[in-house]
Amino acid sequence: MHDNQPKKNWRAKLHEIIYEADTPAGKLFDVILLIAIIASIVFVMLESIKEFDKDYHYFLVFAEWVITIIFSIEYILRIISVKKPFKYIFSFYGIIDLLSTIPMYLSLIFAGTQVLIALRALRLLRVFRILKLARYVGASNLLANSLKASRAKIFVFLFAVLIVSVIFGTVMYFIEGEPSGFTSIPVSVYWCIVTLTTVGFGDIAPITPLGQFIAALIMILGYGIIAVPTGIVSAEYMSQTKGRVPQAPLHTEVDMNTEVCPNCSAQRHKDKAKFCYNCGHLLNPHS
Amino acid sequence: MHDNQPKKNWRAKLHEIIYEADTPAGKLFDVILLIAIIASIVFVMLESIKEFDKDYHYFLVFAEWVITIIFSIEYILRIISVKKPFKYIFSFYGIIDLLSTIPMYLSLIFAGTQVLIALRALRLLRVFRILKLARYVGASNLLANSLKASRAKIFVFLFAVLIVSVIFGTVMYFIEGEPSGFTSIPVSVYWCIVTLTTVGFGDIAPITPLGQFIAALIMILGYGIIAVPTGIVSAEYMSQTKGRVPQAPLHTEVDMNTEVCPNCSAQRHKDKAKFCYNCGHLLNPHS
Amino acid sequence: MHDNQPKKNWRAKLHEIIYEADTPAGKLFDVILLIAIIASIVFVMLESIKEFDKDYHYFLVFAEWVITIIFSIEYILRIISVKKPFKYIFSFYGIIDLLSTIPMYLSLIFAGTQVLIALRALRLLRVFRILKLARYVGASNLLANSLKASRAKIFVFLFAVLIVSVIFGTVMYFIEGEPSGFTSIPVSVYWCIVTLTTVGFGDIAPITPLGQFIAALIMILGYGIIAVPTGIVSAEYMSQTKGRVPQAPLHTEVDMNTEVCPNCSAQRHKDKAKFCYNCGHLLNPHS
Amino acid sequence: MHDNQPKKNWRAKLHEIIYEADTPAGKLFDVILLIAIIASIVFVMLESIKEFDKDYHYFLVFAEWVITIIFSIEYILRIISVKKPFKYIFSFYGIIDLLSTIPMYLSLIFAGTQVLIALRALRLLRVFRILKLARYVGASNLLANSLKASRAKIFVFLFAVLIVSVIFGTVMYFIEGEPSGFTSIPVSVYWCIVTLTTVGFGDIAPITPLGQFIAALIMILGYGIIAVPTGIVSAEYMSQTKGRVPQAPLHTEVDMNTEVCPNCSAQRHKDKAKFCYNCGHLLNPHS
Repeated sequence: MHDNQPKKNWRAKLHEIIYEADTPAGKLFDVILLIAIIASIVFVMLESIKEFDKDYHYFLVFAEWVITIIFSIEYILRIISVKKPFKYIFSFYGIIDLLSTIPMYLSLIFAGTQVLIALRALRLLRVFRILKLARYVGASNLLANSLKASRAKIFVFLFAVLIVSVIFGTVMYFIEGEPSGFTSIPVSVYWCIVTLTTVGFGDIAPITPLGQFIAALIMILGYGIIAVPTGIVSAEYMSQTKGRVPQAPLHTEVDMNTEVCPNCSAQRHKDKAKFCYNCGHLLNPHS
Repeated sequence: MHDNQPKKNWRAKLHEIIYEADTPAGKLFDVILLIAIIASIVFVMLESIKEFDKDYHYFLVFAEWVITIIFSIEYILRIISVKKPFKYIFSFYGIIDLLSTIPMYLSLIFAGTQVLIALRALRLLRVFRILKLARYVGASNLLANSLKASRAKIFVFLFAVLIVSVIFGTVMYFIEGEPSGFTSIPVSVYWCIVTLTTVGFGDIAPITPLGQFIAALIMILGYGIIAVPTGIVSAEYMSQTKGRVPQAPLHTEVDMNTEVCPNCSAQRHKDKAKFCYNCGHLLNPHS
Repeated sequence: MHDNQPKKNWRAKLHEIIYEADTPAGKLFDVILLIAIIASIVFVMLESIKEFDKDYHYFLVFAEWVITIIFSIEYILRIISVKKPFKYIFSFYGIIDLLSTIPMYLSLIFAGTQVLIALRALRLLRVFRILKLARYVGASNLLANSLKASRAKIFVFLFAVLIVSVIFGTVMYFIEGEPSGFTSIPVSVYWCIVTLTTVGFGDIAPITPLGQFIAALIMILGYGIIAVPTGIVSAEYMSQTKGRVPQAPLHTEVDMNTEVCPNCSAQRHKDKAKFCYNCGHLLNPHS
Repeated sequence: MHDNQPKKNWRAKLHEIIYEADTPAGKLFDVILLIAIIASIVFVMLESIKEFDKDYHYFLVFAEWVITIIFSIEYILRIISVKKPFKYIFSFYGIIDLLSTIPMYLSLIFAGTQVLIALRALRLLRVFRILKLARYVGASNLLANSLKASRAKIFVFLFAVLIVSVIFGTVMYFIEGEPSGFTSIPVSVYWCIVTLTTVGFGDIAPITPLGQFIAALIMILGYGIIAVPTGIVSAEYMSQTKGRVPQAPLHTEVDMNTEVCPNCSAQRHKDKAKFCYNCGHLLNPHS
C-alpha cells in the first residue's frame, strides 16, 4: 500500500496492536491475551478444587497475581491508546476488563472471601473478546442470522413451553404432593421443565399411577415439541444459505477486517476503508 | 380518522377497552390484566411453599382477595359490555373467568381446602387470554399451521411410539420383574416411555444383562425416531414458509388487528375494517 | 354399482365382513375386534398389578375367558372364510391369532405360570392388525417411505453409534472401574449408549475427573450426532413430499381400498378392481 | 474378461485376496477377518465380566491365543504381499494391526496386567477396517460430506456450548456449593454439560430454589440449541443430495471398487481401471 502517511505515532501503533488482528503484532497480542484468559479460567477452576488448592495454594496465588498484573497493564494500555478513553471505560468490555483486575487488589484490603472468587469468575466473560478473532466469522454470522430471523418464533415456542410447564407442574403438585418430592408448585414446575426438555434428573419422580400417566404425557409432548425449534432453525438456516450463496458467496467474510476506529471504537470496517464509517476519523492504514 | 360517528355510547367504549388492544386505554387494560393474572399465578405458587405460607399467610390471603375482586369486576364488565352476554358466559373463556373468581367466595362458606387451591390454579388458563395480545401473531400462526398440517403424521408417529412402549414395556416386565422396580406392566410401559423419549429418570433402571441389552435397543430406537416428528414439522414448516413468502410477505401480520365485534365477538378483523365480517355490525372505529 | 353377480354366498359375505373395512358390517366387525384387543391388553396389564389382581382375580379370569372365546370364534371364522386356509394359518397374523387364544386353554391343563401370561402378552401384536383400518394410510405410507429411503444411511449411522459406544465403553471401564458401577465392559458399553442417546439414567455415573471429562465428550458427541438421523429423515421426507404433491396429489390414498382377495389374501387392490392383481380371482364387489 | 496377463504370481494373488473384496477369495478373507475381529471384541468383553472369567478362564486364554495367532499370520501376510512393506507397517492400520497381536506375546514375559487388557481393547479399532467393505459406501460418503461441509459451523456451535457451560457451571458452583454435589467448578461445568445436552444423570442436582431456576434456564437453552446442529446438518445434507441426484445418480457407488494398488496401496480405483491412478503400477485384474 502506497499511502501518504509519513510516520505513525506510538498511540496509533499501540491501537493497531491491541484492537486489531490483521498485523503480526496484533495477532501476537491476541494470542498472548487468549492464553492469559484461558489460564485465568483454569486457575479459578483449580482453586475451587479443595485438594488441589491445599497443595498448590501459593502457586495459585502467585499465578493469580501474574495474570492480574497482565490484565492491569492491558487495561491501562487500552485506555491510553484510544482517543476517547471514557467511552471504552464505560463500555461493556471496559467494565469487564476492570472487573477482571480488581478482585486481587481488593483481596489485599479485605480478607479473601468467596465473593471475590466469584468476581474473578467474571473473567470468563472476557472469552467473548476472543470471538472477535473469529476465523469462522462467516459461519457464526450465518448461525447468528438464522437465530435472529427465528427469534420471534422461538419466543412463542418458549412461551408455550413455559405455560405448559406451569399448568402441568401445578397439576402434578396436587396429584403427587410431598411424598414424591413435589414439595411446592415452583418445585413441580421445575420438575416439569426437567421432564419436558427430556433432561430427567430423577431426583424427583412421580410414584402414583396417575402421576406417572401424566408424566408420560408430558414426556411424549416434550419429545414431540422438540421438533418445533429444530424445524424453525432448520428452515431459517436453509433460507439464509439459499439467499446468500448465489448472489455473492461469502461476501461478509471478505469485506470486513478487524480494525477498530481509534476515535470512536466502531468496529466492522470494510477492508479497504480509510476513514471510519461512524465518525469520519482516519483509520490506521496497515503497513 | 374523520369517521362520521357522532358519539360513542359507554358500552361501546367499554367493549373497546376490554376486548381490544389497539387503543391506549385497551392496551392499558390488557397490561393491568396481564399483571393481575401473573400475580395470581405467583401467589398460588408462593402459597404452596410451606415456609413462605407460614410467615406471610395473612398477606397472601389479602392479595388473593384483591385479585379475586379485580377478576370479579372484570367478569361483570365483560358481561355488560357485550350485546349477547350469554354467548360470553358459556364460552370457554367465560367459564374460565368465572372459575377464576369463585374459589375465594366458596372459601367463605367452606373451610379452605386443597380442592379450592386447585380450582384457583385454573386461573393459569387465563394466560391464554394474553396470547391474544400476541405481538407475534404471525409467528404463532405459522407455527400453528405447521403443526395442524402435520397433525395426521404426528398422530401416526405417537401411535407407533405407544405400541412400541406397550410391547417393550411388557417384555421388560417379564425380563426384569420386581427387583429392578418393574413392579407391573403399566409401570414397565411408563419406564419404556421415559426411556424412549430419552428422559431417563433413573428411578427404575434395568439390572439384568438381557434387560440392559433391550434397554439399549429401546434407547437407540428412541434416539432414531425423534428424527421423525422433527423431519415432519421441519418439512411442513418449510412448505408453509415457501407458499407464504413470495406471494405477500408477512401479510398475516399486517392485515389483522385486535378488534372484537361488540355484537358477535368475532375476532381477526382486517386493519381498516368498519363492519364485522361475520355479522355486519359496526365496529368501534379507533380514535 | 350394477354388477352382474346374482347372489353372494355366505362365505364371500363372511370374507367381506372379516377382511375388509369398506362396508358397514366390516366396519362394525373391525370396531368390535379393536375393542376386544384393547380390552385384552388392559386385562393383561391389570393382572400384572398385584393389588388389583388380588381383589378382582375372578373377574379377570372371567374376562380372560370371554376374550379368549371371542378370539377363538374369530380365528375359526377367518379360517373358514378364506379359500386357502393353510396360507392364512401359517401367515404371520395367523400364528399371532392362534397364539392369542391358546394360553387360556393351556392353563386348563397346566397350572397358570408366568410363561402363559407372557404368551398372552403376544396379543399386543394383534394391534398391528388394526393399523389396517388406517384412516391415516396416506400419512403412514409417507412416513414409511421416508424411513425406507433413508434405511441405508440410518444403518450406517447406527453402526457408527455402536462402534463409538464400544470404544468409549471400553475406555470408561478402564478409567472408572467398579467403584462407580462400571463393573464390566458390557455394562460400560450399556452406560455409553445410555449417555450417547442423552437418556442418562444416572444409576451408573462417572466419579473420577478424567471419567467425567470423557463423559462430557460423549454427551456433546451424542448431542451433536442426533442431528444426523434428523437431517436424513428430514431431507428424505421433504423429497418424498416434493415428488408426490405436484404429480398426483394424495393418489396413494385415493386408489387403494381395504379389500382382501378371498383366494390368495393379497391386499391393496385398486378401488374399482374386479379381479385380484395377484392371482386373478374374482374379488367381492361391494354392494 | 479376456485380459492378456498370462500368469499371476503368488504375491499378486495374495494381495488381491487380502486387500480387495471383489473376488470370491477376497470376500471370504474379509468375512473370516470380520468374524475374528468381532470374536476378539466379544472375548475382551467377556473377560471383563468377573463371574464369566472365573468359570471359563482357560477357554478365554485359549481363544485369545487362537485370535492372536490368526492376527499374527494376517499381519505377516499383509507385509509380504505389498511391495513397500514399510509404508504399510508405519501406516495407521499397520500400527493397529501390530498392537492387536503383541499383548498376548507380552503377557508371556510379564504377568498379565490390566494395561495389557486395555491394549487388547485396541483391537476394536480394527473394526474400522471392515467399514472398507462398506456395501453402503455411497450412503456413508454422503453423511461424511455433510458433516465435513458443516464442520466450521459445528465447531462454532460446540465452542458456544462450551462457553455457556463454563459460565453457568461457575455460577452454579457459587449458588449451590458442596451440599448439592457441586464440589468444584470443574464438577459444576461437568454438571452443566450433562444438563445442557439433556442427558441429566441426576447424581448431581440443584436443591436451592435459585439453583433450580438457573437449571431450568440451562435446560430450556439446551432444548432450544439442539435445533442448531440439526438445522445445520439437515441443510448441508439436503444441499449435498440436491447437487448429487440430478447430475449422476449414485455414481460414487457405481464407479469405485475395493482394489488396492499392490505398489503404493492407493485405494478407490475406478471399476475398470487397469493401472493405479497414483503410481501407474499395474493393478490386479479380476478373473
